Amino acid sequence: MAPAPAAAPVSSSSACRAGGTSCPNSRAAVAASAPGRRRRKTYPAVSAAATSAWSAPQEIALDSKVDMLLDSVKWDSKGLAVAIAQNVDTGAILMQGFANKEALAKTISTRKATFFSRSRSSLWTKGETSMNFINVHDIFLDCDRDSIIYLGKPDGPTCHTGAETCYYSSVYDDLQGSKPNEDRQVMTTLYSLEDTISRRQEETITEGSGKPSWTKKLLLDNQLLCSKIREEAGELIQTLLENEDQSRTASEMADLLYHAMVLLRVKDVKMEEVLEVLRKRFSQSGIEEKASRNKP
Amino acid sequence: MAPAPAAAPVSSSSACRAGGTSCPNSRAAVAASAPGRRRRKTYPAVSAAATSAWSAPQEIALDSKVDMLLDSVKWDSKGLAVAIAQNVDTGAILMQGFANKEALAKTISTRKATFFSRSRSSLWTKGETSMNFINVHDIFLDCDRDSIIYLGKPDGPTCHTGAETCYYSSVYDDLQGSKPNEDRQVMTTLYSLEDTISRRQEETITEGSGKPSWTKKLLLDNQLLCSKIREEAGELIQTLLENEDQSRTASEMADLLYHAMVLLRVKDVKMEEVLEVLRKRFSQSGIEEKASRNKP
Repeated sequence: MAPAPAAAPVSSSSACRAGGTSCPNSRAAVAASAPGRRRRKTYPAVSAAATSAWSAPQEIALDSKVDMLLDSVKWDSKGLAVAIAQNVDTGAILMQGFANKEALAKTISTRKATFFSRSRSSLWTKGETSMNFINVHDIFLDCDRDSIIYLGKPDGPTCHTGAETCYYSSVYDDLQGSKPNEDRQVMTTLYSLEDTISRRQEETITEGSGKPSWTKKLLLDNQLLCSKIREEAGELIQTLLENEDQSRTASEMADLLYHAMVLLRVKDVKMEEVLEVLRKRFSQSGIEEKASRNKP
Repeated sequence: MAPAPAAAPVSSSSACRAGGTSCPNSRAAVAASAPGRRRRKTYPAVSAAATSAWSAPQEIALDSKVDMLLDSVKWDSKGLAVAIAQNVDTGAILMQGFANKEALAKTISTRKATFFSRSRSSLWTKGETSMNFINVHDIFLDCDRDSIIYLGKPDGPTCHTGAETCYYSSVYDDLQGSKPNEDRQVMTTLYSLEDTISRRQEETITEGSGKPSWTKKLLLDNQLLCSKIREEAGELIQTLLENEDQSRTASEMADLLYHAMVLLRVKDVKMEEVLEVLRKRFSQSGIEEKASRNKP
């Protein structure tokens, strides 16, 4: 991912506002605020040099570039391509829809994930009703140029059910007779671990006696947890200083990450919040600057 | 994600092997090894109880459940649904294709991501030519049951170009005139940070004098790096012991993660390897067991 550029305001001359419920001619609205009027668009991700001066040649070049890009997509016989919205911090696939040229043009311009609704035959900006927009940081096309990723940050739950993502029905759970559970999202390793730790914490409240798991012991004993984090940090460092092998480093980093994530749980902090901090810092070279300020 | 079950061997009675290049009647092949012969299938993710005994009622119940599940998917007018392959550890979207009933049935059964090729009108198991299979740990359907995620671990690069994923063309890069770069994958925050650290390391080799960035200083000075990791672990712990606010915890965790990732870079260890360790441990409650063994 490129450093996520700061979101630029949508041009006030645009007739098509993100979140607006009616946008009958969105391509036209993106392309020109009124027929015959001089075209004036914003493409927020494009460098400041490209958008700040509003010189006519620059704008025309930009329009033409966007048109070329839109034409380069391999739209299917219905003028559509698959569009997948993904959380920039967690990697969670939030939803999948379809985009036509207008939907992609509007997403490029407004930075709000916009789709073409096949059932309603109209453009649809995710969040225009719920206000849970997906704020697009970058857009990717695949090698065939017929599949699109909107990489962005959701304002809230994406699914109309209120679930964080639309993918909460596990085929294998289903085959074993489990009912779909909106808390049982598709989860990659880090978030699956976070979920496991969270469930252990709930069990410390609901369950009584019995031999607690290691995670539960850590959750209930701050001194033990802190001493383990110190210990694991030390063991990770040791793999460098004593030139231990790579598998040892991976293993010690796994231990440190796990114990630190138990601390996050005790403090009720999500890994997503940590990643958001990192994204905001390093997208501005901020982490290096901050770290540099604090250097011993 | 449910704890990823250990991959079970595909039934030797199955006529359709993962990686085979011809599988003309895959649904039939999955459903029965030969017409009229008693059906004998494996569904590796289903609990051992459901697969080990091979009792006729259990098998029939399982077949019927798979059929019901396949029928519950909202296939489009061409009998297809979008199928997205995602890396279980990193969350990277590897590729997107389409599945028909047969492709989904084969994926459920073989645990190798399988698609329906619209251009060739045939089933296609990713990796059948390149041997870079995507080993499926779980499969999710979305709320509308018309979109599928194959959550799995790739054996190697997914894209036919040799790139890790098929998504390496950034729309905003394109608008700024940058050429597509297979190293410039769609990356979520953690991997974008990993990439930044990696590029800083390359710069320490290629660049000469000049004021190095903080990351470069850390990369070049093991003692400094180790002292920073200890310091950041201490500061994270302090947010718990001194009851500091949540934003402070997120910030200190970000610092610890960043510095620990610089150490990973020095040791040439990828975050994906760390996550693989975590997945293997906690999917068997292993991390808790291991940690418990090591407890003070």
